[in-house]
Amino acid sequence: MIGVTGGDAYAGGFLGELVRRFREADGGEGESDFQLLAPLVVPRSRRAAPLSGAPDPEVFWRIDVFHAAVGAAIERRTGVHCEPMLRMHHDGFGRVVLIAGRLVVLSRTLRDVIAFGFDSVEALAEAGERLVAEGVELIERFPDVARGAP
Amino acid sequence: MIGVTGGDAYAGGFLGELVRRFREADGGEGESDFQLLAPLVVPRSRRAAPLSGAPDPEVFWRIDVFHAAVGAAIERRTGVHCEPMLRMHHDGFGRVVLIAGRLVVLSRTLRDVIAFGFDSVEALAEAGERLVAEGVELIERFPDVARGAP
Repeated sequence: MIGVTGGDAYAGGFLGELVRRFREADGGEGESDFQLLAPLVVPRSRRAAPLSGAPDPEVFWRIDVFHAAVGAAIERRTGVHCEPMLRMHHDGFGRVVLIAGRLVVLSRTLRDVIAFGFDSVEALAEAGERLVAEGVELIERFPDVARGAP
Repeated sequence: MIGVTGGDAYAGGFLGELVRRFREADGGEGESDFQLLAPLVVPRSRRAAPLSGAPDPEVFWRIDVFHAAVGAAIERRTGVHCEPMLRMHHDGFGRVVLIAGRLVVLSRTLRDVIAFGFDSVEALAEAGERLVAEGVELIERFPDVARGAP
């Protein structure tokens, strides 16, 4: 346990969902939560563009899993299923959306996918929880659309 | 002109938008509209799975351009910008959405992307126009969401 958000908020919140996904992918037994999240926690100065032009698929995976964890935390709080979709361009731009029914719960343009990361676990947790809160608010505003606009 | 939907409906409608995209990509001067659309007009019996497992990127392009044309025709009729997003899986499944603001105007799961095609130009035009009509209806039902839920 990192203990950033502590207790239930951690287990059912964004960071808990994120750790769970990293652990599933990693399969490692011995690593701490902090060690698992390390690829997302990189000081800005070290998040430089790579030498080659093509982005690392690993970067895409991290962006995907970050937003999947946001979606899972929203789903846990609202009962509405959220699905992430990514569109990455080779010039380093990316678009990420989270979809619930007919509602775009989250919509982001990432200007520099290579540099996707956070200065600290606290910054990572804050960014994720802020997106969760925004998504929950939007679903509460448009519940019919989020349930597929039947 | 193919003359399937004729006149203004053709120029500003789905099929006109689709032809325009094929012509831009092709660059060819001599080809008729019908010749340009030929890759999408394939009898079902000839839309077989390929020998190798990996889908042809050309198939993705056709699926993308089909839905981009649906989005452009919706935009022309509503004034609301629509953007397509695709997620293709290597097992042949695909998900396509068209997004306007915070509204998922169109959402489709394609079960067999390799076999994406239509028996005739008429069937192609009908399928596109039906999706356009559904999208326009949804935007009229949820105009605030389609304008980004400000």
